Amino acid sequence: MSSAQKDEPARRQPADGAKRSEIIAAATERFARDGYNSTKWADIATDVGVGPTALYHYFGSKQHCLFVILDEAAQDALERFERAIGKHSDPAVALHAVVADAFDVTPREVQRLRVLAAEHGLLAVPRKPAREEQARQLARARTRALDVTWATLLARAMERGVIPEGDARLLARAVLGLYNSIWQWYRPNGIVALTRIAEFFSDRTMALIRLAPEAVA
Amino acid sequence: MSSAQKDEPARRQPADGAKRSEIIAAATERFARDGYNSTKWADIATDVGVGPTALYHYFGSKQHCLFVILDEAAQDALERFERAIGKHSDPAVALHAVVADAFDVTPREVQRLRVLAAEHGLLAVPRKPAREEQARQLARARTRALDVTWATLLARAMERGVIPEGDARLLARAVLGLYNSIWQWYRPNGIVALTRIAEFFSDRTMALIRLAPEAVA
Repeated sequence: MSSAQKDEPARRQPADGAKRSEIIAAATERFARDGYNSTKWADIATDVGVGPTALYHYFGSKQHCLFVILDEAAQDALERFERAIGKHSDPAVALHAVVADAFDVTPREVQRLRVLAAEHGLLAVPRKPAREEQARQLARARTRALDVTWATLLARAMERGVIPEGDARLLARAVLGLYNSIWQWYRPNGIVALTRIAEFFSDRTMALIRLAPEAVA
Repeated sequence: MSSAQKDEPARRQPADGAKRSEIIAAATERFARDGYNSTKWADIATDVGVGPTALYHYFGSKQHCLFVILDEAAQDALERFERAIGKHSDPAVALHAVVADAFDVTPREVQRLRVLAAEHGLLAVPRKPAREEQARQLARARTRALDVTWATLLARAMERGVIPEGDARLLARAVLGLYNSIWQWYRPNGIVALTRIAEFFSDRTMALIRLAPEAVA
Protein backbone atom coordinates (compact mmCIF):
# COMPACT_ATOMS: atom_id res chain seq x y z
CA MET A 1 0.00 0.00 0.00
CA SER A 2 2.24 2.78 -1.18
CA SER A 3 -0.35 5.40 -2.11
CA ALA A 4 -3.78 6.54 -1.04
CA GLN A 5 -5.12 5.93 -4.56
CA LYS A 6 -3.95 2.35 -4.50
CA ASP A 7 -5.48 1.82 -1.08
CA GLU A 8 -8.81 3.40 -1.85
CA PRO A 9 -9.77 2.48 -5.41
CA ALA A 10 -13.42 3.19 -4.58
CA ARG A 11 -12.71 6.93 -4.70
CA ARG A 12 -11.89 6.83 -8.41
CA GLN A 13 -15.23 5.61 -9.74
CA PRO A 14 -18.49 7.44 -9.04
CA ALA A 15 -20.58 4.26 -8.86
CA ASP A 16 -18.02 2.76 -6.50
CA GLY A 17 -18.09 5.95 -4.46
CA ALA A 18 -21.86 5.78 -4.08
CA LYS A 19 -21.69 2.19 -2.82
CA ARG A 20 -18.87 3.15 -0.47
CA SER A 21 -21.01 5.95 1.02
CA GLU A 22 -23.89 3.49 1.38
CA ILE A 23 -21.65 1.09 3.32
CA ILE A 24 -20.44 3.91 5.57
CA ALA A 25 -24.02 5.03 6.26
CA ALA A 26 -25.17 1.48 7.04
CA ALA A 27 -22.15 0.83 9.28
CA THR A 28 -22.60 4.12 11.15
CA GLU A 29 -26.24 3.31 11.81
CA ARG A 30 -25.46 -0.17 13.12
CA PHE A 31 -22.45 0.92 15.19
CA ALA A 32 -24.53 3.71 16.76
CA ARG A 33 -27.55 1.51 17.46
CA ASP A 34 -26.08 -1.90 18.34
CA GLY A 35 -22.51 -0.94 19.28
CA TYR A 36 -19.38 -1.58 17.26
CA ASN A 37 -18.58 -4.86 19.01
CA SER A 38 -22.03 -6.38 18.49
CA THR A 39 -22.20 -5.46 14.82
CA LYS A 40 -21.31 -8.19 12.35
CA TRP A 41 -19.50 -7.15 9.19
CA ALA A 42 -21.72 -9.56 7.24
CA ASP A 43 -24.86 -7.70 8.43
CA ILE A 44 -23.58 -4.50 6.86
CA ALA A 45 -23.05 -6.41 3.60
CA THR A 46 -26.69 -7.54 3.77
CA ASP A 47 -27.89 -3.98 4.51
CA VAL A 48 -26.36 -2.62 1.33
CA GLY A 49 -27.02 -5.71 -0.82
CA VAL A 50 -23.48 -6.83 -1.54
CA GLY A 51 -21.75 -10.10 -0.67
CA PRO A 52 -19.19 -10.14 2.15
CA THR A 53 -16.43 -10.63 -0.40
CA ALA A 54 -17.50 -7.58 -2.42
CA LEU A 55 -17.48 -5.58 0.83
CA TYR A 56 -13.73 -6.17 1.07
CA HIS A 57 -13.30 -4.28 -2.19
CA TYR A 58 -14.20 -1.14 -0.21
CA PHE A 59 -12.87 -1.85 3.27
CA GLY A 60 -10.28 -4.33 4.52
CA SER A 61 -12.30 -5.02 7.67
CA LYS A 62 -14.97 -3.74 10.03
CA GLN A 63 -12.23 -1.89 11.93
CA HIS A 64 -10.94 -0.26 8.72
CA CYS A 65 -14.47 0.97 8.05
CA LEU A 66 -14.73 2.33 11.61
CA PHE A 67 -11.51 4.31 11.21
CA VAL A 68 -12.79 5.82 7.96
CA ILE A 69 -16.01 6.84 9.73
CA LEU A 70 -14.06 8.46 12.59
CA ASP A 71 -11.80 10.23 10.09
CA GLU A 72 -14.77 11.64 8.17
CA ALA A 73 -16.37 12.76 11.45
CA ALA A 74 -13.23 14.65 12.47
CA GLN A 75 -12.80 16.07 8.96
CA ASP A 76 -16.38 17.37 8.89
CA ALA A 77 -15.98 18.82 12.39
CA LEU A 78 -12.85 20.67 11.22
CA GLU A 79 -14.59 22.04 8.12
CA ARG A 80 -17.61 23.16 10.15
CA PHE A 81 -15.34 24.80 12.70
CA GLU A 82 -13.56 26.78 9.98
CA ARG A 83 -16.83 27.78 8.33
CA ALA A 84 -18.40 28.88 11.64
CA ILE A 85 -15.35 30.84 12.70
CA GLY A 86 -14.61 32.21 9.22
CA LYS A 87 -16.55 35.45 9.32
CA HIS A 88 -15.75 36.53 12.87
CA SER A 89 -12.57 38.34 13.89
CA ASP A 90 -13.79 38.88 17.49
CA PRO A 91 -12.85 35.67 19.39
CA ALA A 92 -15.88 35.99 21.70
CA VAL A 93 -18.25 36.04 18.71
CA ALA A 94 -16.27 33.23 17.07
CA LEU A 95 -16.54 31.07 20.23
CA HIS A 96 -20.30 31.55 20.35
CA ALA A 97 -20.61 30.76 16.63
CA VAL A 98 -18.52 27.58 16.87
CA VAL A 99 -20.39 26.26 19.92
CA ALA A 100 -23.81 27.04 18.41
CA ASP A 101 -22.78 25.29 15.21
CA ALA A 102 -21.61 22.20 17.12
CA PHE A 103 -25.18 21.59 18.30
CA ASP A 104 -26.78 22.21 14.91
CA VAL A 105 -26.61 18.53 14.00
CA THR A 106 -28.75 16.20 11.90
CA PRO A 107 -29.85 12.74 13.16
CA ARG A 108 -27.20 11.18 10.87
CA GLU A 109 -24.52 13.38 12.41
CA VAL A 110 -25.70 12.45 15.91
CA GLN A 111 -25.23 8.77 14.99
CA ARG A 112 -21.68 9.50 13.93
CA LEU A 113 -20.93 11.55 17.06
CA ARG A 114 -22.19 8.61 19.10
CA VAL A 115 -19.82 6.22 17.31
CA LEU A 116 -16.97 8.69 17.81
CA ALA A 117 -17.74 9.06 21.53
CA ALA A 118 -18.03 5.30 22.04
CA GLU A 119 -15.16 4.01 19.92
CA HIS A 120 -12.51 6.70 19.62
CA GLY A 121 -10.40 4.81 22.19
CA LEU A 122 -9.60 2.35 19.37
CA LEU A 123 -7.60 5.11 17.67
CA ALA A 124 -4.91 4.66 20.35
CA VAL A 125 -4.25 1.00 19.55
CA PRO A 126 -1.87 0.25 16.59
CA ARG A 127 -3.11 -2.28 14.04
CA LYS A 128 -1.19 -4.85 12.04
CA PRO A 129 -3.07 -4.85 8.68
CA ALA A 130 -1.64 -2.03 6.53
CA ARG A 131 -4.99 -0.57 5.39
CA GLU A 132 -6.30 -0.51 8.97
CA GLU A 133 -3.15 1.06 10.35
CA GLN A 134 -3.07 3.70 7.62
CA ALA A 135 -6.72 4.62 8.23
CA ARG A 136 -6.13 4.67 12.00
CA GLN A 137 -3.21 7.08 11.72
CA LEU A 138 -5.17 9.33 9.37
CA ALA A 139 -8.18 9.45 11.72
CA ARG A 140 -5.98 10.04 14.75
CA ALA A 141 -4.10 12.88 13.05
CA ARG A 142 -7.40 14.52 12.07
CA THR A 143 -8.78 14.18 15.61
CA ARG A 144 -5.63 15.85 16.94
CA ALA A 145 -5.97 18.61 14.35
CA LEU A 146 -9.39 19.35 15.84
CA ASP A 147 -7.78 19.63 19.32
CA VAL A 148 -5.20 22.06 17.92
CA THR A 149 -7.83 24.15 16.10
CA TRP A 150 -9.78 24.53 19.33
CA ALA A 151 -6.65 25.31 21.33
CA THR A 152 -5.68 27.99 18.80
CA LEU A 153 -9.05 29.74 19.06
CA LEU A 154 -8.94 29.58 22.86
CA ALA A 155 -5.36 30.94 22.92
CA ARG A 156 -6.45 33.81 20.69
CA ALA A 157 -9.35 34.57 23.03
CA MET A 158 -6.89 34.59 25.96
CA GLU A 159 -4.50 36.95 24.17
CA ARG A 160 -7.33 39.36 23.47
CA GLY A 161 -8.44 39.20 27.11
CA VAL A 162 -11.83 37.71 26.16
CA ILE A 163 -11.34 34.74 28.52
CA PRO A 164 -8.89 34.43 31.46
CA GLU A 165 -5.37 33.13 30.78
CA GLY A 166 -4.84 29.37 31.16
CA ASP A 167 -3.51 26.27 29.45
CA ALA A 168 -5.23 26.49 26.06
CA ARG A 169 -4.46 22.88 25.11
CA LEU A 170 -5.89 21.45 28.33
CA LEU A 171 -8.88 23.77 27.96
CA ALA A 172 -9.44 22.52 24.40
CA ARG A 173 -9.45 18.95 25.72
CA ALA A 174 -11.91 19.95 28.44
CA VAL A 175 -14.29 21.57 25.92
CA LEU A 176 -14.12 18.62 23.53
CA GLY A 177 -14.33 16.09 26.39
CA LEU A 178 -17.49 17.74 27.70
CA TYR A 179 -19.00 17.94 24.20
CA ASN A 180 -18.16 14.33 23.25
CA SER A 181 -19.58 13.01 26.54
CA ILE A 182 -23.06 14.19 25.55
CA TRP A 183 -23.33 11.71 22.71
CA GLN A 184 -22.56 8.80 25.01
CA TRP A 185 -25.94 9.11 26.71
CA TYR A 186 -28.06 11.25 24.38
CA ARG A 187 -30.74 9.27 22.53
CA PRO A 188 -32.74 10.89 19.69
CA ASN A 189 -35.99 9.54 21.14
CA GLY A 190 -35.02 9.97 24.78
CA ILE A 191 -36.68 12.21 27.36
CA VAL A 192 -34.22 15.10 26.97
CA ALA A 193 -34.75 17.05 23.74
CA LEU A 194 -31.75 18.10 21.67
CA THR A 195 -32.73 21.79 21.86
CA ARG A 196 -32.61 21.62 25.65
CA ILE A 197 -29.26 19.82 25.60
CA ALA A 198 -27.90 22.40 23.12
CA GLU A 199 -29.00 25.29 25.33
CA PHE A 200 -27.71 23.73 28.55
CA PHE A 201 -24.34 22.59 27.24
CA SER A 202 -23.63 25.74 25.17
CA ASP A 203 -24.16 27.76 28.32
CA ARG A 204 -21.99 25.42 30.43
CA THR A 205 -19.23 25.39 27.82
CA MET A 206 -19.06 29.18 28.16
CA ALA A 207 -18.88 28.76 31.96
CA LEU A 208 -16.10 26.18 31.56
CA ILE A 209 -13.94 28.54 29.47
CA ARG A 210 -15.05 31.46 31.67
CA LEU A 211 -16.44 33.55 28.84
CA ALA A 212 -18.60 36.21 30.49
CA PRO A 213 -22.21 36.31 29.21
CA GLU A 214 -21.82 40.04 28.46
CA ALA A 215 -18.83 39.36 26.19
CA VAL A 216 -21.17 39.23 23.20
CA ALA A 217 -23.49 42.19 22.99
CA MET B 1 -28.66 -17.96 37.54
CA SER B 2 -31.21 -17.21 40.20
CA SER B 3 -28.96 -15.71 42.85
CA ALA B 4 -25.77 -13.69 43.07
CA GLN B 5 -24.16 -16.40 45.22
CA LYS B 6 -24.85 -19.04 42.64
CA ASP B 7 -23.43 -16.83 39.93
CA GLU B 8 -20.33 -15.81 41.83
CA PRO B 9 -19.08 -18.84 43.77
CA ALA B 10 -15.61 -17.25 43.90
CA ARG B 11 -16.83 -14.84 46.58
CA ARG B 12 -17.45 -17.64 49.05
CA GLN B 13 -13.93 -19.01 49.29
CA PRO B 14 -10.98 -16.84 50.30
CA ALA B 15 -8.44 -18.62 48.06
CA ASP B 16 -10.86 -18.36 45.15
CA GLY B 17 -11.38 -14.70 46.00
CA ALA B 18 -7.65 -14.00 45.85
CA LYS B 19 -7.35 -15.60 42.41
CA ARG B 20 -10.42 -13.70 41.27
CA SER B 21 -8.82 -10.41 42.35
CA GLU B 22 -5.64 -11.39 40.53
CA ILE B 23 -7.60 -12.01 37.34
CA ILE B 24 -9.36 -8.65 37.68
CA ALA B 25 -6.03 -6.86 38.21
CA ALA B 26 -4.42 -8.56 35.21
CA ALA B 27 -7.44 -7.87 32.99
CA THR B 28 -7.61 -4.21 34.06
CA GLU B 29 -3.93 -3.75 33.25
CA ARG B 30 -4.27 -5.33 29.80
CA PHE B 31 -7.54 -3.56 28.93
CA ALA B 32 -5.99 -0.22 29.97
CA ARG B 33 -2.73 -0.77 28.10
CA ASP B 34 -3.73 -2.70 24.95
CA GLY B 35 -7.45 -1.90 24.75
CA TYR B 36 -10.32 -4.26 25.52
CA ASN B 37 -10.73 -5.39 21.90
CA SER B 38 -7.07 -6.28 21.40
CA THR B 39 -6.80 -8.24 24.65
CA LYS B 40 -7.13 -12.00 24.38
CA TRP B 41 -8.87 -13.80 27.21
CA ALA B 42 -6.17 -16.50 27.01
CA ASP B 43 -3.44 -13.91 27.69
CA ILE B 44 -5.09 -13.02 30.98
CA ALA B 45 -5.10 -16.73 31.89
CA THR B 46 -1.35 -16.84 31.19
CA ASP B 47 -0.76 -13.67 33.28
CA VAL B 48 -2.28 -15.25 36.38
CA GLY B 49 -1.02 -18.77 35.73
CA VAL B 50 -4.31 -20.60 35.19
CA GLY B 51 -5.56 -22.47 32.15
CA PRO B 52 -8.27 -20.88 29.98
CA THR B 53 -10.76 -23.46 31.24
CA ALA B 54 -10.02 -22.64 34.90
CA LEU B 55 -10.56 -18.98 34.06
CA TYR B 56 -14.19 -19.77 33.23
CA HIS B 57 -14.71 -20.84 36.82
CA TYR B 58 -14.41 -17.16 37.73
CA PHE B 59 -15.83 -15.37 34.69
CA GLY B 60 -18.09 -16.57 31.89
CA SER B 61 -16.20 -14.51 29.31
CA LYS B 62 -13.90 -11.55 28.75
CA GLN B 63 -16.99 -9.34 28.57
CA HIS B 64 -18.30 -10.70 31.89
CA CYS B 65 -14.96 -9.80 33.47
CA LEU B 66 -15.13 -6.29 31.96
CA PHE B 67 -18.59 -5.71 33.44
CA VAL B 68 -17.34 -6.79 36.88
CA ILE B 69 -14.42 -4.34 36.56
CA LEU B 70 -16.78 -1.50 35.59
CA ASP B 71 -19.11 -2.40 38.45
CA GLU B 72 -16.27 -2.34 40.99
CA ALA B 73 -15.07 0.99 39.59
CA ALA B 74 -18.52 2.55 40.02
CA GLN B 75 -18.94 0.95 43.46
CA ASP B 76 -15.60 2.34 44.67
CA ALA B 77 -16.44 5.77 43.22
CA LEU B 78 -19.73 5.72 45.16
CA GLU B 79 -18.03 4.73 48.42
CA ARG B 80 -15.34 7.39 47.99
CA PHE B 81 -17.99 9.99 47.23
CA GLU B 82 -19.88 9.14 50.42
CA ARG B 83 -16.69 9.16 52.49
CA ALA B 84 -15.52 12.49 51.06
CA ILE B 85 -18.90 14.13 51.53
CA GLY B 86 -19.60 12.51 54.89
CA LYS B 87 -18.17 15.07 57.24
CA HIS B 88 -19.37 18.22 55.48
CA SER B 89 -22.83 19.72 55.87
CA ASP B 90 -21.94 22.81 53.80
CA PRO B 91 -22.52 21.84 50.13
CA ALA B 92 -19.71 24.15 48.93
CA VAL B 93 -17.20 22.42 51.21
CA ALA B 94 -18.62 19.02 50.24
CA LEU B 95 -18.24 19.83 46.51
CA HIS B 96 -14.61 20.82 46.99
CA ALA B 97 -13.93 17.68 49.05
CA VAL B 98 -15.53 15.35 46.49
CA VAL B 99 -13.69 16.90 43.54
CA ALA B 100 -10.33 16.88 45.36
CA ASP B 101 -10.89 13.24 46.29
CA ALA B 102 -11.70 12.30 42.68
CA PHE B 103 -8.15 13.27 41.65
CA ASP B 104 -6.47 11.52 44.57
CA VAL B 105 -6.00 8.31 42.57
CA THR B 106 -3.40 5.53 42.51
CA PRO B 107 -1.86 4.23 39.23
CA ARG B 108 -4.11 1.13 39.58
CA GLU B 109 -7.18 3.34 39.88
CA VAL B 110 -6.09 5.36 36.85
CA GLN B 111 -5.96 2.12 34.84
CA ARG B 112 -9.50 1.33 35.87
CA LEU B 113 -10.75 4.85 35.10
CA ARG B 114 -9.19 4.48 31.65
CA VAL B 115 -11.05 1.19 31.07
CA LEU B 116 -14.26 2.82 32.29
CA ALA B 117 -13.79 5.83 30.00
CA ALA B 118 -12.97 3.66 26.98
CA GLU B 119 -15.48 0.83 27.37
CA HIS B 120 -18.48 2.07 29.31
CA GLY B 121 -20.44 2.29 26.05
CA LEU B 122 -20.68 -1.52 26.20
CA LEU B 123 -22.97 -1.15 29.23
CA ALA B 124 -25.71 0.04 26.87
CA VAL B 125 -25.77 -3.13 24.78
CA PRO B 126 -27.82 -6.09 26.16
CA ARG B 127 -26.05 -9.47 26.21
CA LYS B 128 -27.44 -12.95 25.66
CA PRO B 129 -25.38 -15.05 28.14
CA ALA B 130 -27.08 -14.85 31.56
CA ARG B 131 -23.93 -14.17 33.61
CA GLU B 132 -22.86 -11.39 31.24
CA GLU B 133 -26.29 -9.79 31.18
CA GLN B 134 -26.61 -9.93 34.97
CA ALA B 135 -23.17 -8.34 35.43
CA ARG B 136 -23.99 -5.70 32.80
CA GLN B 137 -27.21 -4.69 34.52
CA LEU B 138 -25.47 -4.52 37.89
CA ALA B 139 -22.68 -2.32 36.52
CA ARG B 140 -25.12 -0.09 34.68
CA ALA B 141 -27.29 0.37 37.77
CA ARG B 142 -24.23 1.29 39.83
CA THR B 143 -23.03 3.79 37.21
CA ARG B 144 -26.47 5.38 37.27
CA ALA B 145 -26.40 5.51 41.06
CA LEU B 146 -23.24 7.60 40.76
CA ASP B 147 -25.09 10.00 38.43
CA VAL B 148 -27.90 10.28 40.97
CA THR B 149 -25.51 10.82 43.89
CA TRP B 150 -23.84 13.67 42.04
CA ALA B 151 -27.18 15.17 40.98
CA THR B 152 -28.38 15.05 44.61
CA LEU B 153 -25.35 16.95 45.89
CA LEU B 154 -25.67 19.54 43.12
CA ALA B 155 -29.41 19.96 43.81
CA ARG B 156 -28.63 20.51 47.49
CA ALA B 157 -26.03 23.15 46.57
CA MET B 158 -28.66 24.85 44.37
CA GLU B 159 -31.26 24.84 47.16
CA ARG B 160 -28.77 26.42 49.54
CA GLY B 161 -27.88 29.07 46.97
CA VAL B 162 -24.27 27.88 46.78
CA ILE B 163 -24.45 27.47 42.99
CA PRO B 164 -27.01 28.95 40.54
CA GLU B 165 -30.23 27.04 39.86
CA GLY B 166 -30.20 24.67 36.89
CA ASP B 167 -30.95 21.13 35.78
CA ALA B 168 -29.06 19.14 38.45
CA ARG B 169 -29.22 15.87 36.49
CA LEU B 170 -27.79 17.39 33.31
CA LEU B 171 -25.17 19.17 35.40
CA ALA B 172 -24.19 15.86 37.04
CA ARG B 173 -23.74 14.36 33.58
CA ALA B 174 -21.63 17.34 32.54
CA VAL B 175 -19.38 17.03 35.62
CA LEU B 176 -18.94 13.27 35.18
CA GLY B 177 -18.54 13.59 31.39
CA LEU B 178 -15.76 16.15 31.85
CA TYR B 179 -14.07 14.02 34.52
CA ASN B 180 -14.29 10.75 32.58
CA SER B 181 -12.92 12.38 29.43
CA ILE B 182 -9.58 13.03 31.18
CA TRP B 183 -8.77 9.33 31.42
CA GLN B 184 -9.22 8.86 27.69
CA TRP B 185 -6.05 10.81 26.94
CA TYR B 186 -4.12 10.93 30.22
CA ARG B 187 -1.07 8.65 30.27
CA PRO B 188 0.84 8.05 33.54
CA ASN B 189 4.17 8.66 31.78
CA GLY B 190 2.90 11.39 29.47
CA ILE B 191 4.02 15.00 29.35
CA VAL B 192 1.20 16.35 31.53
CA ALA B 193 1.64 15.46 35.22
CA LEU B 194 -1.35 14.26 37.23
CA THR B 195 -0.95 17.07 39.78
CA ARG B 196 -1.30 19.65 37.01
CA ILE B 197 -4.32 17.86 35.55
CA ALA B 198 -5.90 17.66 39.02
CA GLU B 199 -5.39 21.38 39.62
CA PHE B 200 -6.63 22.41 36.17
CA PHE B 201 -9.71 20.17 36.07
CA SER B 202 -10.75 20.77 39.70
CA ASP B 203 -10.73 24.47 38.97
CA ARG B 204 -12.65 24.04 35.69
CA THR B 205 -15.21 21.74 37.32
CA MET B 206 -15.97 24.56 39.77
CA ALA B 207 -16.32 26.95 36.81
CA LEU B 208 -18.65 24.47 35.07
CA ILE B 209 -21.01 24.28 38.08
CA ARG B 210 -20.48 28.02 38.68
CA LEU B 211 -19.26 27.64 42.23
CA ALA B 212 -17.63 30.97 43.11
CA PRO B 213 -14.00 30.67 44.29
CA GLU B 214 -14.86 32.65 47.44
CA ALA B 215 -17.59 30.12 48.39
CA VAL B 216 -15.06 28.25 50.56
CA ALA B 217 -13.16 30.51 52.93
